[in-house]
Amino acid sequence: MPLPERALTSLIVRYQGRNILIDCGEGTQVMIRKKGFSLNKIEAIFITHFHADHISGLPGLLLSVGKSERTEPLKIIGPKGISEIIKSLCVIAPDLPFKIECTEIDKNSESFMINGLRVETLPVNHSVPCYCYSINLDRKGKFLPQKAVSLGIEQKYWKHLQKGESVEMDGNVFTSDMVLGESRKGLKVTYCTDTRPTEGIAEFAKNSDLFVCEGMYAEDNKLEKAIINKHMMFREACELAVKAEVKELWFTHFSPSIKDPSEYAEFAEKLFENSLIPCDLQSIELNYEE
Amino acid sequence: MPLPERALTSLIVRYQGRNILIDCGEGTQVMIRKKGFSLNKIEAIFITHFHADHISGLPGLLLSVGKSERTEPLKIIGPKGISEIIKSLCVIAPDLPFKIECTEIDKNSESFMINGLRVETLPVNHSVPCYCYSINLDRKGKFLPQKAVSLGIEQKYWKHLQKGESVEMDGNVFTSDMVLGESRKGLKVTYCTDTRPTEGIAEFAKNSDLFVCEGMYAEDNKLEKAIINKHMMFREACELAVKAEVKELWFTHFSPSIKDPSEYAEFAEKLFENSLIPCDLQSIELNYEE
Repeated sequence: MPLPERALTSLIVRYQGRNILIDCGEGTQVMIRKKGFSLNKIEAIFITHFHADHISGLPGLLLSVGKSERTEPLKIIGPKGISEIIKSLCVIAPDLPFKIECTEIDKNSESFMINGLRVETLPVNHSVPCYCYSINLDRKGKFLPQKAVSLGIEQKYWKHLQKGESVEMDGNVFTSDMVLGESRKGLKVTYCTDTRPTEGIAEFAKNSDLFVCEGMYAEDNKLEKAIINKHMMFREACELAVKAEVKELWFTHFSPSIKDPSEYAEFAEKLFENSLIPCDLQSIELNYEE
Repeated sequence: MPLPERALTSLIVRYQGRNILIDCGEGTQVMIRKKGFSLNKIEAIFITHFHADHISGLPGLLLSVGKSERTEPLKIIGPKGISEIIKSLCVIAPDLPFKIECTEIDKNSESFMINGLRVETLPVNHSVPCYCYSINLDRKGKFLPQKAVSLGIEQKYWKHLQKGESVEMDGNVFTSDMVLGESRKGLKVTYCTDTRPTEGIAEFAKNSDLFVCEGMYAEDNKLEKAIINKHMMFREACELAVKAEVKELWFTHFSPSIKDPSEYAEFAEKLFENSLIPCDLQSIELNYEE
C-alpha cells in the first residue's frame, strides 16, 4: 500500500545511462523524477507479478514516457498474461507514440540481454505467478597480449578482441576467448518480492553484490500471517542472504503495519550483518572488485 | 503529469464525515491519507473523463479500500463506458470485498443524491467525453411555528416537518413545505477540468461558493496550445468565474511547463480578485451564510 511516508517497491538498475525498471506501482514515475532520472531512458520494464502495488503505475508512466516524445519501442517483460494486462491497463493510456514489446516468461527460467545486462528470471512462491529477477553485468577475462602475439594477430585488431568481438585476418578467424584470460567476477543484483522463501532463491541469488529482498514482517509472531499471505519475514530474508552469500541485503516491501522499518535495523543486522533498511530513493553504485 | 512537487488534480467534498471523491489519478490515495481522511469513508467516486491522470489511481485506491475491509457497495459515476474501463483496470485489483456500482452518465445533465448532497453534471468540451460536476447542499426554508400553529399541528410533530418529512395527524397529511419559509441559499462547489471554456459552464457554476477550475496555461501566448489540447487558460477560468458570479475561484491542473503556479497569483487576482493558487492538500470549510 503506498503510504505518505513510504513509496511502493520498485528498482531501477542504471548502466551506461540507460535504465532497467523492475516493478511500477502507483507513484513510481514520480519517484523516478524525484531521483532525477529521465523517464525516457528506460530500456525495459520487468514486472514481478500483477498485484496493483507492482504494476498500477504503468499506464501513467507509459503516458508520461509518451509525452517525452519517445518513439523507440519499450520492452515489458513479466509473467504469462502480461500482454493482456497491459492491453487492459492501456485503455487509459491510448495513442502512445512508441510500440510496447511484451514478452511473457513461459519457461521456468529465461535469460534476457538488455543493454549489455543479462537479466535472469526465477519463478517464486506467491499467491499469483511471480518472478524473482537478477541483473548481471558479466565481465570478460583480462586481455593477454602475449597470447595475441603468439597467434600472430596484428595489433590493430586487439581492441576488437578486447571487446569480445571476433576478427578475420588473412582468412583466419580469431575469437576473443583465444586472447582473453578467465572471465572475472562481474556484478550482480537480485530483486526478490513477493514470495515465501524457497531453496531456489538462495541458489538464484548466489554471490549477489546486492540482494534486494522483501521483509514484509519483522516480529516472529507474524510468521503465520506471512505464510498465509505468501510473504517473507525479515528472518527468512536474512537466512536466504546467508545461504546465498550475498555481499549486501536491502529490505523492501514492508507491511503497512510496520510504521518505521528502520526500528528493525539492529534486529536485521544481528541476523545478517551487512543488511540495510533503505529509505525511499536510496541508491548505491556498484563497481568491479579491482 | 504527477510531479514530485505537485500531485494530480482531484477533489474531496466532505459532508457529515463521509466523502465524495472527484477524479482519482495516480497518487490520490496517498494524498487522501496525507490529509488524514479515511479511504473507507468514500461514498461515491465521480470521474470527469478517462485520461490516466484522472483515473489511474483507481485500482490502487479500490484495493486499499478493500484492505480496510469495506463490504458496503461503492458508487462510481462517470462518462459512458466507465463500466468497461473499471472492468479493465480492475484486472490488477481482483477479489474486492465490496461491490462496485457503476453509473454511466448518458443524458446531458443528470442529478445524483449522494449522502444528502446533490451532484449535478454538465458535459464539457475536451478531446474525449468529459463532465463538469457541481456538488450542492440544499437548504430548506426556516421553520415557521406560526404556520404550524395555524394548521393545528401538534408540537411533537414539528421536528419531523423541520427535517422535511411529512406527518400524518388524525388522517390529515402535512408536508414540510406547509410550515417552512422560502428555501435558503445552500452551498455549492463546482469542479471543472479538462475543457475549453463554454457558455454552459458559466451557467452551470452560477453562484458557486467555490469554483475549482483548471488553469492549464497562464501566459497568453499559450492560447493556441490550450485550444489544440482542449484546455483552459487562467484568463478564461477567470472570465467564467466573473460570469458565474462565484465567491471564490481555485485554480488546478497546471501544465508541467508551469514550474511554480503561485508565481501567477497576482496575475490571476487582477483578473478575478477572489482567486487562489492552492497548494497540494489545500482545503476550505464552507458554511451557510447565516
